[in-house]
Amino acid sequence: MLSRRQRDRLAVVLVETRNPLNLGAAARAMSNFGFDRLRVVEPYEVAFREARSAMGARELLEAAEECPSIAAAVSDCRLVVGTSAIGKRQLQHPVRTLAHGAQLIRHHLRFDRVAILFGSEKTGLSNQDLSHCHWLLHIPTRAQHLSMNLAQAVAVTLYEMVRAAQPERSNIKVEVATAGDLERLTQLLLACATESGFVSTGSAGSREQKLRRLVHRVNLPPADVQMLLGLARQILWSLRPGS
Amino acid sequence: MLSRRQRDRLAVVLVETRNPLNLGAAARAMSNFGFDRLRVVEPYEVAFREARSAMGARELLEAAEECPSIAAAVSDCRLVVGTSAIGKRQLQHPVRTLAHGAQLIRHHLRFDRVAILFGSEKTGLSNQDLSHCHWLLHIPTRAQHLSMNLAQAVAVTLYEMVRAAQPERSNIKVEVATAGDLERLTQLLLACATESGFVSTGSAGSREQKLRRLVHRVNLPPADVQMLLGLARQILWSLRPGS
Repeated sequence: MLSRRQRDRLAVVLVETRNPLNLGAAARAMSNFGFDRLRVVEPYEVAFREARSAMGARELLEAAEECPSIAAAVSDCRLVVGTSAIGKRQLQHPVRTLAHGAQLIRHHLRFDRVAILFGSEKTGLSNQDLSHCHWLLHIPTRAQHLSMNLAQAVAVTLYEMVRAAQPERSNIKVEVATAGDLERLTQLLLACATESGFVSTGSAGSREQKLRRLVHRVNLPPADVQMLLGLARQILWSLRPGS
Repeated sequence: MLSRRQRDRLAVVLVETRNPLNLGAAARAMSNFGFDRLRVVEPYEVAFREARSAMGARELLEAAEECPSIAAAVSDCRLVVGTSAIGKRQLQHPVRTLAHGAQLIRHHLRFDRVAILFGSEKTGLSNQDLSHCHWLLHIPTRAQHLSMNLAQAVAVTLYEMVRAAQPERSNIKVEVATAGDLERLTQLLLACATESGFVSTGSAGSREQKLRRLVHRVNLPPADVQMLLGLARQILWSLRPGS
C-alpha cells in the first residue's frame, strides 16, 4: 500500500493536452485512485480553462500546476518516466511493462518524487520530450491497436500503481444455515416432489440423496433458507388434497 | 495469456449507456486489449448511432449486438459478473477485487462464455440488473471518490484481464449452468411462488430479484439445474387449476 505521503510524491504530467474532456477525465482517474498532484505542460489554453470548470475533480484541477516546459515540470523529481505506445519509433530508452515499472516507481516513492509523463492525444511524447525520461512504461495493448485514449492510459497506469499489496477486500461473510434448517428444507422439497408426482415411491431414495446433496452443496445463507422454507411450505400446503 | 478463442468468449455488456463518447471510448479500450465482443442493452438510440460512426473501433461497434434485456444479453454465458462502485447500496452479492476476480474469469474463459456488465453513467447497475450476476467486481478506487468514468472502468478491467503473463495452471473444468437455464429456473420458481400464493402481486418485484439472486449465487451444476427445472415444472403443473 502507498501511504498518503508516497502518493503525494507522484506527479502526473500531461504534455500538450488538446481536449478539455481528456484533461477532466484524467483528473477524475487521478482522484479515483488517490493521486492529487497534476502538472500540465503547455496545454491548449481553452482546453485547460474548460476542463477547470468541469465536474468530478474540480479541486484537483484547480490545484493543477501549469508549467512552461517539461524541464520545469519535472525539476524536483528524481525519477522521470515516460509513457509510449511504442511501435512507430526507434526507442532509445529502456522499456518496462506497466506491471514491472509500477513496482519500481513504488520503490522510488518511498524516498523520492517521481513524474510520469503522458503525451498529447495526437502525437504522444516526442523524442525531445522523451529525452527527459529515465525509462519508459509500456501498457500491453495489442499490436494492431497500440494507442490508448489519454485518460484511459492515465487510469490504467494509476490503477497498477495502487493495485499491488491491496489486502484482499471481501464482503463474503461466512454465514451459513444450520444443518437442522437444511434438513428441514430437504424434507419439505422432497414432500413437494412426492405430492406433485415428481418422485414416485420407487425412486424416492435416490432423489432424496440428490436433493440433500444439492441443498448442502450450495451454501445458502440463513435468509435464503428461510425464504425457501416459506416457499416450500406454501407450495406443499397448496398441493395437499383438500387445501 | 488468453488465446484468441478465450478472448472471444468474453462479452462486454454495456447497460443503458447514454453518452456516445463513452460507447466509443469503451469500444476503443476493448480493441486496445484485444476483446471484440460488445453487447449493448437498451442504449440511448442516438448515442448508439453516433458512436457507430465514431473513429477508432468502427468494426467492433458495427459488430456490436443490441439486446432487448440483460437476460437476452447473457443467456449463452455460464458466468455473469457485475461491476459496481459499491458503497451506496447494501450489496447482496459476493464482491471480489479486480485482481482476484480477473483470475477467476480467466479460468472460466478456458471453457465457458463469460459476460461482464457495466451500468449506465449516472446510476450504474440497479439491484434488478445485479440479480442476473453471480458475483461483483470491485476496482479499488478510494472511498472519497469511488465512481469511475465508464470507459475507464472498462479499460482498467480489460487491462487486468490481459495483465497476467503467466499461463494458468489448473485444468479442473468448472461445470456450471448457462444463464439461460438459470433464468428459466427463476421464472418457474416465481410461477410456483405465485400459484401457491407465496408471492402476491404487490411483492412480486422484490421476490423476483431475491429468487434470481439466489439461483445465480449458488453455482448449480447443469445436472442439478435440470433436476430442479423438472421438479418446478411438475409442481407448477400440479398447482394450476384443472390439473
